[in-house]
Amino acid sequence: MTTEPLSARLPVTDRTRHRRLREQGSLDRSELEAILDAGFVCHLGVVTEGRPVVVPTVYGRDDRWLYLHGSVASRSLAPDVPVCVTVTHVDGLVVARSVFEHGVNYRSAMIHGTARKVTDPEEKLEGLRLLTEHSAPGQWSYARRPNRKELAATTLLALSLEEASVKIRAGAPDDGDGPDAALGLWAGVLPLTTAWGAPRPDPALPPGIAVPDHLARRAGTRHG
Amino acid sequence: MTTEPLSARLPVTDRTRHRRLREQGSLDRSELEAILDAGFVCHLGVVTEGRPVVVPTVYGRDDRWLYLHGSVASRSLAPDVPVCVTVTHVDGLVVARSVFEHGVNYRSAMIHGTARKVTDPEEKLEGLRLLTEHSAPGQWSYARRPNRKELAATTLLALSLEEASVKIRAGAPDDGDGPDAALGLWAGVLPLTTAWGAPRPDPALPPGIAVPDHLARRAGTRHG
Repeated sequence: MTTEPLSARLPVTDRTRHRRLREQGSLDRSELEAILDAGFVCHLGVVTEGRPVVVPTVYGRDDRWLYLHGSVASRSLAPDVPVCVTVTHVDGLVVARSVFEHGVNYRSAMIHGTARKVTDPEEKLEGLRLLTEHSAPGQWSYARRPNRKELAATTLLALSLEEASVKIRAGAPDDGDGPDAALGLWAGVLPLTTAWGAPRPDPALPPGIAVPDHLARRAGTRHG
Repeated sequence: MTTEPLSARLPVTDRTRHRRLREQGSLDRSELEAILDAGFVCHLGVVTEGRPVVVPTVYGRDDRWLYLHGSVASRSLAPDVPVCVTVTHVDGLVVARSVFEHGVNYRSAMIHGTARKVTDPEEKLEGLRLLTEHSAPGQWSYARRPNRKELAATTLLALSLEEASVKIRAGAPDDGDGPDAALGLWAGVLPLTTAWGAPRPDPALPPGIAVPDHLARRAGTRHG
């Protein structure tokens, strides 16, 4: 485990090279990090008996590692096997003059590597903190932290953020300056926005327990 | 290619059997269809040189087949290889008294199979219609349909909806009746909602072209 910082420019490998024209690839590590920070559910791909399995799971990160709950993928995910983690935000539907040019505005990050099982107790606790704070900032200080038994029951995996690629599509459809522009049809983007709603208390909650600030202030804010 | 209807009860196979307790599996095909119909972007997993690759792509469906744009995954997806398609809707964050019980409310469908390339021209056109109408209902009648050249340039894949599994988690956290309930901490769900925004016209659009009704009426409606 090296502690050298990862390169700000994403590496170009056989797996991360962008091969299609219409999707804009980015080699900027800060764009990768922005996409990861905008969500908390990824799609984790593994190979089981020669076949792909794709499961949604939560993640957290620091500058070097993506942390994943191993238990979520218990039936398929052993450590030390190749994985692919993809995080996608769908920003809107691209409505063109022609069906052929219809598309999606999105931001997507794909990380390739081999996940290792986190065994060092200090890293495990820190990884769980990152994972918790990623989806629920403030909860690590507020909620009861994992006890020894819970820690033992949790499998945490770490995937290096080194080999990753980013694809982003944004903006208007591409046929505004082609022959189809003369058709007189409407074209543009139907935006999609995800937002946090008002907190819904657990029905089992006794009266008089207020929503803590760090959760209450998310209501109405954008997510993704 | 059989035309017999698929069973209303999803089949239980080695790949679709639910093994974890806290996620609610469903064997109801109508739940699978509801999850597929609520979104239009899936995560498609394939195996390339022994390694998993997970790419986001659009889809459409009928009662029997999921249709996918082959070109999106051109670098990795050949027909007649095993694929896994996963569609996930994130409905909220489950905030528990303990970090250990934190989780996500979600609806997820996973389809396993081997995608075939659609070669019959009639099925190809119908598949593209389903794919277009799935994300942009009304556009197949409104926009210019694919011409012969565009059809030839499009690879359409069909994946049987036969072998699929559904997982849903909904509702409050699970520690409301455990010892942690005495901690006096707030617990509940932070809901996430995705909605269509107001259509954004292509800047290249000449003045005087109104947003057609089938697109305008989506603004403000829920997605996912």
